[in-house]
Amino acid sequence: MAEQANGGYSGKILRVNLSNNITSVETTDNSFLRKYLGGAGFVTYFLWKELGQGTEPLGPDNKLIFALGPLTGIPLPGSGRNCIGAKSPLTEGIAKSEVGGFWGAELKRAGYDVVIVEGKAEKPVYLWIHDGEASIKDAGHLWGKNIKETQQTIRTELGDNLLRVAAIGPAGENLVRYACIMNGLFDTAGRGGLGAVMGAKNLKAVAVRGHQAPPISNSRPVTELRKWMAANLHLVKDFCEYGTGAAMEAFEAAGNLPVRNFRDGVFPGITKISAPTIKDTIRIGMDGCFACTVRCKKVVQVKQPYFVDPAYGGPEYETLAALGSNCGIDNLEALAKGSELCNAYSLDTISAGEVIAFAMECFENGLLSVKDTDGIELRFGNEEAMLKLIELIARREGIGDLLAEGAARADRKIGKAAEEFAIQVKGLEAGMHEPRVKPGLGLGFMVNPQGADHCCNLHDTMYIGENWRVKEMEHLGMPVPFSLEDIGPRKVALFKLVQQKLILLDSLVVCQFLPYSFEQLNDVVAAVTGWDTSITELMRIAERTLTMTRLFNLREGFTAADDKLPPRFFQPKTDGVLADKLLDPAKLEHAKRYYYVLMGWDEGTGIPKPEKVAELDIP
Amino acid sequence: MAEQANGGYSGKILRVNLSNNITSVETTDNSFLRKYLGGAGFVTYFLWKELGQGTEPLGPDNKLIFALGPLTGIPLPGSGRNCIGAKSPLTEGIAKSEVGGFWGAELKRAGYDVVIVEGKAEKPVYLWIHDGEASIKDAGHLWGKNIKETQQTIRTELGDNLLRVAAIGPAGENLVRYACIMNGLFDTAGRGGLGAVMGAKNLKAVAVRGHQAPPISNSRPVTELRKWMAANLHLVKDFCEYGTGAAMEAFEAAGNLPVRNFRDGVFPGITKISAPTIKDTIRIGMDGCFACTVRCKKVVQVKQPYFVDPAYGGPEYETLAALGSNCGIDNLEALAKGSELCNAYSLDTISAGEVIAFAMECFENGLLSVKDTDGIELRFGNEEAMLKLIELIARREGIGDLLAEGAARADRKIGKAAEEFAIQVKGLEAGMHEPRVKPGLGLGFMVNPQGADHCCNLHDTMYIGENWRVKEMEHLGMPVPFSLEDIGPRKVALFKLVQQKLILLDSLVVCQFLPYSFEQLNDVVAAVTGWDTSITELMRIAERTLTMTRLFNLREGFTAADDKLPPRFFQPKTDGVLADKLLDPAKLEHAKRYYYVLMGWDEGTGIPKPEKVAELDIP
Repeated sequence: MAEQANGGYSGKILRVNLSNNITSVETTDNSFLRKYLGGAGFVTYFLWKELGQGTEPLGPDNKLIFALGPLTGIPLPGSGRNCIGAKSPLTEGIAKSEVGGFWGAELKRAGYDVVIVEGKAEKPVYLWIHDGEASIKDAGHLWGKNIKETQQTIRTELGDNLLRVAAIGPAGENLVRYACIMNGLFDTAGRGGLGAVMGAKNLKAVAVRGHQAPPISNSRPVTELRKWMAANLHLVKDFCEYGTGAAMEAFEAAGNLPVRNFRDGVFPGITKISAPTIKDTIRIGMDGCFACTVRCKKVVQVKQPYFVDPAYGGPEYETLAALGSNCGIDNLEALAKGSELCNAYSLDTISAGEVIAFAMECFENGLLSVKDTDGIELRFGNEEAMLKLIELIARREGIGDLLAEGAARADRKIGKAAEEFAIQVKGLEAGMHEPRVKPGLGLGFMVNPQGADHCCNLHDTMYIGENWRVKEMEHLGMPVPFSLEDIGPRKVALFKLVQQKLILLDSLVVCQFLPYSFEQLNDVVAAVTGWDTSITELMRIAERTLTMTRLFNLREGFTAADDKLPPRFFQPKTDGVLADKLLDPAKLEHAKRYYYVLMGWDEGTGIPKPEKVAELDIP
Repeated sequence: MAEQANGGYSGKILRVNLSNNITSVETTDNSFLRKYLGGAGFVTYFLWKELGQGTEPLGPDNKLIFALGPLTGIPLPGSGRNCIGAKSPLTEGIAKSEVGGFWGAELKRAGYDVVIVEGKAEKPVYLWIHDGEASIKDAGHLWGKNIKETQQTIRTELGDNLLRVAAIGPAGENLVRYACIMNGLFDTAGRGGLGAVMGAKNLKAVAVRGHQAPPISNSRPVTELRKWMAANLHLVKDFCEYGTGAAMEAFEAAGNLPVRNFRDGVFPGITKISAPTIKDTIRIGMDGCFACTVRCKKVVQVKQPYFVDPAYGGPEYETLAALGSNCGIDNLEALAKGSELCNAYSLDTISAGEVIAFAMECFENGLLSVKDTDGIELRFGNEEAMLKLIELIARREGIGDLLAEGAARADRKIGKAAEEFAIQVKGLEAGMHEPRVKPGLGLGFMVNPQGADHCCNLHDTMYIGENWRVKEMEHLGMPVPFSLEDIGPRKVALFKLVQQKLILLDSLVVCQFLPYSFEQLNDVVAAVTGWDTSITELMRIAERTLTMTRLFNLREGFTAADDKLPPRFFQPKTDGVLADKLLDPAKLEHAKRYYYVLMGWDEGTGIPKPEKVAELDIP
């Protein structure tokens, strides 16, 4: 690429080594920025380039990378996010997670696009980044504190109520392998145990504040897209009205709702815990992220039987299903409490819920007993047990210490029989969607480098019927709709294109919920950076990053055999519409192989062909 | 795809069966038009769908298909062309060829986008298509006539001096396997022997006339692109000033000029026959195609020692090299005469020149003697012999009967030793460019379904340095420039993208010389048809058509082993800069395999994977 000005995108890196307290600032050049774009692209690049093979995820050699993208912090809905990555203590492969709120936009205003945290502090510290300056500060007094206390204390001691905090609670400190990192009090970089990586570095928080709005090369397309979004909010009206979880009752009816560790199908209690019900009951408002008009974040208040602090927001769909139906629980107040606790402790609600459901099924099958649980009757539907386990896991107390390892590690300790109850891929507990209903999601669970990520859900159901996603894919020459059951070559080709779009969004970093097309995104990237990018260029960048994540995992010992679903998804559900519906393993295997072909990876081994690696110019 | 109006694109098919004189009109629907687009896409579709395996190319079951595209006949430079296809009597694989002039635009005005000619007339006929009407007319009096006489006679007898004629001369009538079809007097659908297919059907000509300009859904983008082209003629200034062949002297210096059957490198006579020399000597004007401001067609006049009729235009680069340097001839007047004769007789100048050079090398090596040639001293540099052979080949007289079979068939008859002198792939004689200089062209020669087509040249040299093609590829995220020598994965990826662009142009049908980008083409397609196409949709269509051509050839028995270069390209030239430069067969083989991978074809066999066929929805 010829050198061009990169308008609003400095790509400045702050590197912090906590072992020796050295911070340094690195600049990037235009060719680097344009090749990897940002967010997930950066995270993947640095992990691939800088991490040694076999790095211990919870050791000092792992690196925790916060990355923004070219669109972060511009006045556009969806632009407030940031990406975080590291080698995952849960999967021992790549972990990357995107998170909303205001922290990303604030870091941008503080002058950085990437923060790479290396080494391990001798004692707890936090990082304070403000208007280009960075300092490492003592966090001894913050250790053990929950997220709200942490944020409040930092704001008070730095005398700035508008600074933004990314922090861990006790779960991160205690190295729970699925601890998350919280932006503020209810935005979470949830999956893969990034909070444990942060905890292992003795890094309690990263506080940021800045005053320099990012320059934009040509502001008009940004203004236009913002106006378009304001005029087209109806495209995401469910998110506006309900937040996530608007369609849970339909999910249940279709067999798409995980019930009791993905075992059962029927869950009448769904009407008590769905987002529409929340709206009519415990919801006291909606909140949102930087510059976003959608405001999809529920705020709930409960006073009894549990007190739920509205500051921690409210339960997302994934939380409602993971702690709720998947644990057989339909007590909304308990779920709101569970959500609050997970946020306060920095626990990923999906993994936490799935691990608890796993433990419940082990218990009901006699693989765990009250002796193991210190008397807890760990049965499906027991909301008290669920809440108690969240506490135990976050503190690694009693049975919590075992469960803090995640379902895949716990099943090895509990015994062979427990394996079939661990609903995970590569060690990551499954998101709350049902591959038996939508095999495209199954393929996503299989080949996604992070494991059975909930984001894989955007691959499939969303492309049924008449909607903006279908229209965009048709516009890209990818005929839709497919039937939900389809897992043939055209579905796989659609899958790959969707995957490219998602990793592009994660690289920009822009919210996956917003109805922006490739074309709109490209226009705004060009407007901000001054580059003459094109959709095809963005697609190639996405392909490069996807292949790099693959290479990272292969270096860590993953093989094609790890791209597989757990046995549960090949069993019928006990009841409901999926009671006689099974996934066809041969078809899925076929789809997986064809996905490899489309990616330019070896059809059998899934190893990127050397030619593909060279073609994509991967170092 | 949802049904939409297809503004200016009716896609009406005229089907003519010459065995029973039945003509019929078929309509197509929008989904068909949008899936195959036109031109090469249509030709490939109908040949794949309607031809039986093993159809005899010169028998009544072969079909001769004339196809226009959505842009044909609109007021835009490059839109006057049409595509013609059939099973090739030269390669026995797919033949498709694009041709300029005015015939395509006229057929569009007569109301048809496709003419499919089936069967075989009992005696010579011609077809008369005018304003929706079609009739089969006696051509007994035209048989044996050259192109000019044919056109003039038809115009006179139909009383319309503005009708347009596509016709064959004696070479087509005599089933010379590389006879071409002439639009007017100097635009030729040259490659693959389509003129022989026409001759075998006893079809002398297709005359067309119409008065209905094609409707355009939204004329503004068409006007804008036309204006842009007018303002940017400098992008194709060599074509404007010289026509093809502006850089022949540089070609010779770089070793890129075929000299004496691709054997030698040095050719000082190049200065006598290059396009700049033509401009300064025998050129009396320039001519052009429908709506085109470039006007790249030379018109030459020679009075002695040969009389060359200016009505037949002048020699293109390919002709100058094929009949000239490649036969060791630097007599410009003889080349102008050769060009005129080939046009008058409907002989492809590239195959004719290459076959003559082949015969000359056979002669010089004692594989042919004066006994075989009726006394002609068939030596390199003998211009009289070259002109005589054109006559003999067109009439299949003497040695001409053997050479009318093409180099690949002739070598089998002359004997094993002649094989190395036949510079052809799949039976098609090589275009006048040098794979030893540019291995990307070599890959093109290898995998192109039509064989060593001269159009393969657009794959490589054109992407060196600073130019609009390089800029477009960069804009598509394909980093350029590569070195000319490179044949690694990134070059192969570029190659595939360029190939998609070329087959897209052939489907639209738009001239490959015009500097339109994917984006500009897409805008105009959308404007004409009213479709909301996108670049990615157009790329997919291109991929579909390419894979269909592959399937057609495979059905006819071609294998990956046929994707190979003749031995000459792995030998050093006798002199010049390529005397110590060799193509690396292993690297080319590697490139070929990677090309298969990128196409979704089996890496070893080159057979499109069933999944790819299903994904592209190929019937």
